[in-house]
Amino acid sequence: MKIPEQGYLLRIYVGESSQWQGKPLYEAIVLRAREMHLAGATVLRGPMGFGANSRVHTAKILRLSEDLPIVIDIVDSREKIDAFLPDVDEMVMEGLITVESVRVFKYRSSKTP
Amino acid sequence: MKIPEQGYLLRIYVGESSQWQGKPLYEAIVLRAREMHLAGATVLRGPMGFGANSRVHTAKILRLSEDLPIVIDIVDSREKIDAFLPDVDEMVMEGLITVESVRVFKYRSSKTP
Amino acid sequence: MKIPEQGYLLRIYVGESSQWQGKPLYEAIVLRAREMHLAGATVLRGPMGFGANSRVHTAKILRLSEDLPIVIDIVDSREKIDAFLPDVDEMVMEGLITVESVRVFKYRSSKTP
Repeated sequence: MKIPEQGYLLRIYVGESSQWQGKPLYEAIVLRAREMHLAGATVLRGPMGFGANSRVHTAKILRLSEDLPIVIDIVDSREKIDAFLPDVDEMVMEGLITVESVRVFKYRSSKTP
Repeated sequence: MKIPEQGYLLRIYVGESSQWQGKPLYEAIVLRAREMHLAGATVLRGPMGFGANSRVHTAKILRLSEDLPIVIDIVDSREKIDAFLPDVDEMVMEGLITVESVRVFKYRSSKTP
Repeated sequence: MKIPEQGYLLRIYVGESSQWQGKPLYEAIVLRAREMHLAGATVLRGPMGFGANSRVHTAKILRLSEDLPIVIDIVDSREKIDAFLPDVDEMVMEGLITVESVRVFKYRSSKTP
């Protein structure tokens, strides 16, 4: 059985409609993560949520689903996550970012060169 | 770059079909979280899962997908999460709730009053 | 209010198209988790991601969505998770597994025998 490494889970909560330089913000973050050679990124989209700017719309229930929530999970070493955080900080105007330490087991197909 | 705050991630695993006072439980939890002025809530819906009551149905594979799993992520300060937990405890009859500490970076649009 | 137990969150990131003995890997993992009497498993499917084998395809954006990401969350006691890890280790050829400790509140319907 594999030996785990100590790593970080970076989780980014943004709205699906948020943009970065003309493209969806979540897509821009995933592409940046790949450019930075992070181990992986996973985008999840939720059917409901509220976030940074929701308090001013408390009476409008429909407001909740206008901008569907996106969660991006990125797991890598502490060093790689720390190096990536300033990029995320620059790109996210509205949202929430969490970082926590996790034990990581990495698997890579032997078919991959 | 922003300074992180110490916060809590509250994660609630329930079934999509669970109800609370005539509405979907997950929706009721999100609305309650907003009433309590929590920083945000994100609902994710999964295509497969099993939970609290699945052991008695181990032979019926289809049972797995009858009640699709819902995950609700709520991130805020320890104080806000601790104050919200009794509400969640009251509303969830069947499911799983986890709490863990995370470092939190919050972003709020300057367009928001 | 319930007393939390100390538990583990096992999170498994794999591709939707990965197979195990002729069935989807994520499905095989969920069924194995149920056979092992774990408390629950939740599958989430994302609209975008990249993982273990993506670095060799950095120029092909479309590659990102060919094999959609799957996240499986499994929460249980440290003992149950530790006992399940070798199974997961055997089944996952390509992907990422994380383990972290969480406080767990379990709810079970009184209607369940």
